[in-house]
Amino acid sequence: MRFFSDNAASVHPSVLAAMAACNSVDTAYDGDALSKSLDGVMSDLFETEVTALWVTTGTAANSLALASLCPPYGSILCHRDAHIQNDECGAPEFYTHGAKLALIEGDGAKITSEALADKLTATPGGVHWAQPHALSITNATEYGRVYTPAEVGALGEVAKAHGLGFHMDGARFANALVTLGCAPADVTWRAGVDVLSFGFTKNGGLSTECLVYFDREKAKGVAERRKRAGHLLSKGRYLAAQVIALLQDDVWLTNARAANEGAKKLGAACGHRLFQPVEANEVFARMTPDDAAKLRAQGFDFYDWADGEVRFVVSWDQPAAEIDAFAAAIAVL
Amino acid sequence: MRFFSDNAASVHPSVLAAMAACNSVDTAYDGDALSKSLDGVMSDLFETEVTALWVTTGTAANSLALASLCPPYGSILCHRDAHIQNDECGAPEFYTHGAKLALIEGDGAKITSEALADKLTATPGGVHWAQPHALSITNATEYGRVYTPAEVGALGEVAKAHGLGFHMDGARFANALVTLGCAPADVTWRAGVDVLSFGFTKNGGLSTECLVYFDREKAKGVAERRKRAGHLLSKGRYLAAQVIALLQDDVWLTNARAANEGAKKLGAACGHRLFQPVEANEVFARMTPDDAAKLRAQGFDFYDWADGEVRFVVSWDQPAAEIDAFAAAIAVL
Amino acid sequence: MRFFSDNAASVHPSVLAAMAACNSVDTAYDGDALSKSLDGVMSDLFETEVTALWVTTGTAANSLALASLCPPYGSILCHRDAHIQNDECGAPEFYTHGAKLALIEGDGAKITSEALADKLTATPGGVHWAQPHALSITNATEYGRVYTPAEVGALGEVAKAHGLGFHMDGARFANALVTLGCAPADVTWRAGVDVLSFGFTKNGGLSTECLVYFDREKAKGVAERRKRAGHLLSKGRYLAAQVIALLQDDVWLTNARAANEGAKKLGAACGHRLFQPVEANEVFARMTPDDAAKLRAQGFDFYDWADGEVRFVVSWDQPAAEIDAFAAAIAVL
Amino acid sequence: MRFFSDNAASVHPSVLAAMAACNSVDTAYDGDALSKSLDGVMSDLFETEVTALWVTTGTAANSLALASLCPPYGSILCHRDAHIQNDECGAPEFYTHGAKLALIEGDGAKITSEALADKLTATPGGVHWAQPHALSITNATEYGRVYTPAEVGALGEVAKAHGLGFHMDGARFANALVTLGCAPADVTWRAGVDVLSFGFTKNGGLSTECLVYFDREKAKGVAERRKRAGHLLSKGRYLAAQVIALLQDDVWLTNARAANEGAKKLGAACGHRLFQPVEANEVFARMTPDDAAKLRAQGFDFYDWADGEVRFVVSWDQPAAEIDAFAAAIAVL
Repeated sequence: MRFFSDNAASVHPSVLAAMAACNSVDTAYDGDALSKSLDGVMSDLFETEVTALWVTTGTAANSLALASLCPPYGSILCHRDAHIQNDECGAPEFYTHGAKLALIEGDGAKITSEALADKLTATPGGVHWAQPHALSITNATEYGRVYTPAEVGALGEVAKAHGLGFHMDGARFANALVTLGCAPADVTWRAGVDVLSFGFTKNGGLSTECLVYFDREKAKGVAERRKRAGHLLSKGRYLAAQVIALLQDDVWLTNARAANEGAKKLGAACGHRLFQPVEANEVFARMTPDDAAKLRAQGFDFYDWADGEVRFVVSWDQPAAEIDAFAAAIAVL
Repeated sequence: MRFFSDNAASVHPSVLAAMAACNSVDTAYDGDALSKSLDGVMSDLFETEVTALWVTTGTAANSLALASLCPPYGSILCHRDAHIQNDECGAPEFYTHGAKLALIEGDGAKITSEALADKLTATPGGVHWAQPHALSITNATEYGRVYTPAEVGALGEVAKAHGLGFHMDGARFANALVTLGCAPADVTWRAGVDVLSFGFTKNGGLSTECLVYFDREKAKGVAERRKRAGHLLSKGRYLAAQVIALLQDDVWLTNARAANEGAKKLGAACGHRLFQPVEANEVFARMTPDDAAKLRAQGFDFYDWADGEVRFVVSWDQPAAEIDAFAAAIAVL
Repeated sequence: MRFFSDNAASVHPSVLAAMAACNSVDTAYDGDALSKSLDGVMSDLFETEVTALWVTTGTAANSLALASLCPPYGSILCHRDAHIQNDECGAPEFYTHGAKLALIEGDGAKITSEALADKLTATPGGVHWAQPHALSITNATEYGRVYTPAEVGALGEVAKAHGLGFHMDGARFANALVTLGCAPADVTWRAGVDVLSFGFTKNGGLSTECLVYFDREKAKGVAERRKRAGHLLSKGRYLAAQVIALLQDDVWLTNARAANEGAKKLGAACGHRLFQPVEANEVFARMTPDDAAKLRAQGFDFYDWADGEVRFVVSWDQPAAEIDAFAAAIAVL
Repeated sequence: MRFFSDNAASVHPSVLAAMAACNSVDTAYDGDALSKSLDGVMSDLFETEVTALWVTTGTAANSLALASLCPPYGSILCHRDAHIQNDECGAPEFYTHGAKLALIEGDGAKITSEALADKLTATPGGVHWAQPHALSITNATEYGRVYTPAEVGALGEVAKAHGLGFHMDGARFANALVTLGCAPADVTWRAGVDVLSFGFTKNGGLSTECLVYFDREKAKGVAERRKRAGHLLSKGRYLAAQVIALLQDDVWLTNARAANEGAKKLGAACGHRLFQPVEANEVFARMTPDDAAKLRAQGFDFYDWADGEVRFVVSWDQPAAEIDAFAAAIAVL
């Protein structure tokens, strides 16, 4: 029973069906009707005119976005625990051609607007210190925490005041959204976000994320960057189909809701062990190696986060029986 | 009726079936059983121990291979018409961090061993001129021409004598192979090739190519480079499944044979218009704009290669009726 | 007697004197009075407001300029024989992060506006082919040929019409100027040039070139790029001093004139051997290996340009006796 | 009176004299006798066969060294306060093509071998987290602290055990050495250092540092990287001359000793304000803005290091009267 991560879950049946449905010859790259419809689909969802591109991975989506926002000689402000800092083998540095990530502390992998302002104040000007050009936050965060529209908006104001581009890594954007209950627009462009990496792979997709530029000027060059990174698939319609299938009938929200609810169950079972509130589909708990071993002996697989800390992730397709069994096993530790 | 390219053809049913068959949770990235089997599958096919990795696009496969063979300050010898030079928006330069492509002339987009030797002789030594570190050829070439094992072997000898890594862009490797009728090993590592971009997408796959390192030492770092380029998909099993499905029961060869035979029919119809022999699934013919317009008026779509030159490409799934109709239409021009 | 190149000549006494004169503690980097005066000095010389920076080498100056004009995914149009293509070990690719150099043919290493327009017409649009963003020419060229203001202006018009940035490599700008007899402005910004690499090292300097941005908007980021390339010297005043010393009393023009006149003498001695007119301080002549050997046996050092072709370069400090002796030796071959 | 930094001090007369002495035509780049002698000169000094190259700045020297030790997908371990992290505008990222700097804490900008080992233990393996390939320390450090041979040796052992290349930023290597009183070899290659950025500019030079490779295998490609970074000056002899002039008659040690002794005087005057021991030519003291203002009002210029902290740097050429006056002014605060 895999609570290790949500990144290898199964693919939603509607996604496979949609891929099968486009299995006839069409225009290559992103010239097909599905790919061309993405701008419109996302503009409708976000209630504003956007530029949207499919990308196969979150790492590529994040890095393309950051390359749009930061020159090679600049720096990108992000949380010390950000995925872009720790888990992408230097992909942002590759795509931006060497921009620096400047790290900010904060509980739950969240950056407060005060911490952002302090960091900016503490950064010397001039040409010796790489100057900040962008801010990147993750929603939901690497600790399964959620930024509210107000929190994002406060960051967006500081960002705008300092001329920073504003990127949101939304690998688990759906999970954040069902917790927030707000419109997608509220926690993105209305709060100052310029570009969103809108994740689908963890949430029922096969291999697709969607880059959404709310500031369409900033999309300049992204198509070329995607091509030269080898991310312009010739049969792009199968990627666009995934995105569209998941948006259809709110499958993406249904999937995220299921995962979040499972996580809440596990969180409740963890009780005082919890060291982060459960706001999405991840659970962070203190646990001795002995207790962790006991759970593993019962067939539960999960991640050792740090010394005495574990992480459980619930996937969209996690059977209720698995979740209940895991919750019970945790409760009796 | 699309004879524009083979890059947007449909996906072979066995590929979709194989993808559906792996639709349950598994280990992420390339830790699943299918991905882990690729080394063995390719080692069997090529009759030697290889390191094999799935990659989503040919551009990424080529660029990763070149980054394995050439340092940022070196140059890569290739044909003036090579895909890596003209059609990848500088992807080799991106992945190699600025290596130069040094261009060689040759009929049919083929490089002869003499032309290679001449180019090397004409290249000044020292630190001012970027020194050659790699040779890249395409088989079948951008003109649908095929290198024989003897021709590749002659190039391989020159490459080895000059310490060059040797890459083969095999976007249409299957098409070359069915024409050659030799073992895959004969035209690759036995002829000196170090790395092959083994193409599947144009030949019935959805989004997968396979990087095959015959010189396994040269694979050092490629996993890291793939990750930081955003090409390590979390659900990699769906890529491995495509490769394996196409190799199963020689689907890949059957597909390529069908495409090649279609091209031969069109080539025969072209007669004296042909300016390149048809050795794979591409046909290059001289044609006035008027004649081209007549064909298009009948619903045939194809590529204007150059002034007075057109290209037809036959895909693996091209209906016989389309091919016959196109051949007839060409013949009566 | 060295006619091999002008790149290792001695340093003009006024330059050494100026360097000695600033030998007391001052503000570091480019905060000293001399460095800060460069904008004004160059604005006066070019009769327009410019942004000017010292740089230690022509390679760095050219590459910084190109990085200002071309994104990583673009291409730079230049002559096949350009220094940036052949003699800088991929420096433009390094500084631009992988932009491609797209090569144009032309006699005397000169690009005509027709050839430029043809190249642009022949370049496919879209994201597959790296799109042209800049034009770079060398004046005087690698064949010692000079572009007139009219020729530069014609190129500038094509460049502007296609949205290309326009760079001039002026490693031997002084030599071109004394031949042209025009104002520096006439052959640069008045003719559409955006950035000039203004060379001093070959013309009496020790280690300094000056980047001159006529389009000051395009200078955005160049200070940061210079710093991160390690070219922001802490004792920058010694570089600024070189530039100013050479401009003082027209030393730069006097030096260039001396070199050009020497070259003309050698050119006259070459007679029918000449295959390029002598327009600056370089002489290109046909010569058998035997004849070349005879000259070398008499102590004359020069460059084998190509099979049966040699290059002589006269330096600003070349003694008249050396030039006369060389001319005589050539004449009696 | 400038105690702001030692980076803009005057140039030692013997350096200017040596530069004037080589003011006649010679072979270009590093083909002249002085440049060619550098390997031997440094091999003698370090009592082992080394490869040595002149470079104009410390930033370039450091970055070239790091590019020799770390692939683009790796990371470089260094102190949080390291010059390469804070003061080079991303130069290491530029030259390494995007390697990450992984930061370690430690008093006085020193890394202990325990802290290094801990950092390595805490770094997850695999392709997601950039893997450490190099260690870089600064001696004397950014806090004017000195690593002893034993300390460097302990770091070297950890580095070697983990396969890390080991770089020493020796911008103030001379200052460290006169404090240590050991042989240059003792604190470098005998302690496991692979490459040293040997600083001369801060210590009486005009614009020269020397890259010294103790592990000569690791120098592979550095000449090409230097060229494509635009750091291969055509008149290289004037750089080599600076290095040689400073080594002659131990000028470099004499200069460093003078600076260190001045710093000791200031340190003594600071008394309890000191928060770092004075081990080289830098003094770090706690000071209220009021006190700092009082000193500045008397004509003393220095750096505000952090809130309530100041830095004084004594240069090799600092007049004794200035030092005494400053010490007196501090003492009476």
